[in-house]
Amino acid sequence: MASSATAELAPERIVRLEEDGPAVVLLDQRRLPDEVVDVRCATAADVADAIRDMVVRGAPAIGVAAAYGLALAALRGDDLVAAEAALAASRPTAVNLPWALARMREEPTPERARALHEQEVERCRMMAAHAAELFQPGTRALTHCNAGGLATGGYGSAVGALRAAAERGLVERVLVDETRPLLQGARLTAWELEQARIPHAVIADSAAGSLMARGEVDLVVTGADRIAANGDTANKIGTYSLAVLAAHHRIPFYVIAPTSTLDRETPDGSGIPIEERDPTELTSRFPARNPAFDVTPAPLIAAIVTENGVHHAPYQESLA
Amino acid sequence: MASSATAELAPERIVRLEEDGPAVVLLDQRRLPDEVVDVRCATAADVADAIRDMVVRGAPAIGVAAAYGLALAALRGDDLVAAEAALAASRPTAVNLPWALARMREEPTPERARALHEQEVERCRMMAAHAAELFQPGTRALTHCNAGGLATGGYGSAVGALRAAAERGLVERVLVDETRPLLQGARLTAWELEQARIPHAVIADSAAGSLMARGEVDLVVTGADRIAANGDTANKIGTYSLAVLAAHHRIPFYVIAPTSTLDRETPDGSGIPIEERDPTELTSRFPARNPAFDVTPAPLIAAIVTENGVHHAPYQESLA
Repeated sequence: MASSATAELAPERIVRLEEDGPAVVLLDQRRLPDEVVDVRCATAADVADAIRDMVVRGAPAIGVAAAYGLALAALRGDDLVAAEAALAASRPTAVNLPWALARMREEPTPERARALHEQEVERCRMMAAHAAELFQPGTRALTHCNAGGLATGGYGSAVGALRAAAERGLVERVLVDETRPLLQGARLTAWELEQARIPHAVIADSAAGSLMARGEVDLVVTGADRIAANGDTANKIGTYSLAVLAAHHRIPFYVIAPTSTLDRETPDGSGIPIEERDPTELTSRFPARNPAFDVTPAPLIAAIVTENGVHHAPYQESLA
Repeated sequence: MASSATAELAPERIVRLEEDGPAVVLLDQRRLPDEVVDVRCATAADVADAIRDMVVRGAPAIGVAAAYGLALAALRGDDLVAAEAALAASRPTAVNLPWALARMREEPTPERARALHEQEVERCRMMAAHAAELFQPGTRALTHCNAGGLATGGYGSAVGALRAAAERGLVERVLVDETRPLLQGARLTAWELEQARIPHAVIADSAAGSLMARGEVDLVVTGADRIAANGDTANKIGTYSLAVLAAHHRIPFYVIAPTSTLDRETPDGSGIPIEERDPTELTSRFPARNPAFDVTPAPLIAAIVTENGVHHAPYQESLA
């Protein structure tokens, strides 16, 4: 029943650059909520390792961390080509990583990285205001993984939408998929919702369909790691199943993501690289497979919400 | 890579009555596969506790354990009405529990309990032979929870089908849902498949839909805890989601269960009691909901296989 006094994690608490040191300081998301501790990265290679190890995760937050990582390399006078290559190779699916690096390349300064971070959080607030329009009084939402402030560097995408809707009194309760294998829902989203005082309950990922069938879910909101030009959306493994289940039950499925997650160079989901992570995240005793993401085809998505508004199909045009 | 020399657990290893003692001895399924240890139950109330705590689980195995529990009470000269009441109240969803108790009531002897146990295992072998006809060479199957020998008192229902199909050289590989929160798939089914030398890989429950979309699943087989007269089937939470996902991908979804799992008194799934277990099985840190079963509507089931054969819709008639 313990509840933090703060409704929202400060962006600099999640990821920041300390010029005195220098270092990129990341809140260690692997250890939340039991321990609230930082990881200090002294080099861009350390930041790349932290992204790979999921000290920081969530597509926009990865982009922000990489931007700070490149600024860190510049402050240290390190080889910027090597630093960028290490950061770009840390994880394959989120497009925010190459997006942020491309924006930092010309001017890899702390100021520019901080501006990029602030813009990402501002995008979240704008998305949330648009997304809140999709909620009715008494909405019972369901979300997957963590698309919270931790995932975006502040405020959150899908959780941001829940925050804005809750502030308007529109959220009755949020079901939170625990999100195996790393439990980002049970550990991170539940923690953020607790801090925001939004009623919630963690469920096994496999219980979502049954609770939809019982009429306990009015809408689904998730974030995204990469959205292809046609609206096909890569996100945490299990998102696709939720979208199929939502369609079967005629429940709207919404993707909430900033334009930094749009990949206009990739025509559709078949071109999105899907990370396979270490099978021991699931079990070390037996053979296992551990795809970390899946692709939800655009026809299963009721709307994609960016900072520019609520986009409907055909997404090729509405996202352009 | 360690592999047991035995292809199959002996029925008496899973559950047995020792008249010298006397005691019902259960292989502790909570601690498998890391520890292979027994729990000795000195009274029917102990057996009821063991069923509630999931020392033994799986609908047919629960029925067998309850039968031995009643025989144990009779051997001890205990109050049989109280013993039966305690056993009947241990878990609500599996119909095999009241079924087995009804069959033991007139003659609660060790011999009758052992005969019931032997018949359940024989039913599994008959089901498996029928179910193997549903496999083609190179079949890539997916299963949920544990419908193995551990769940039935020997051989297994869905895992029995996989055994029989594999003996005929028809199984390329089995994807095993880990089955949160208690991981019966990752702990028990993977262990049984390892012993049977059937190629397998554990997956997160939420990955099943994505792997179906990639074309990696040819059929789904699960067990059942209770099948209503119209074919609606209660089984471990997540089964319903799998059935919806299978239908979306035009993959046949098969239920493999003995006639002891049929509940002709219950017209459809809406009458099946669904157990809600302790939310701390999921998380003790945040609010949670933990329904242990769900109901799959008959129209999503391609066939129900009992020891009598392969039954197709309309199940009201084909199961009669």
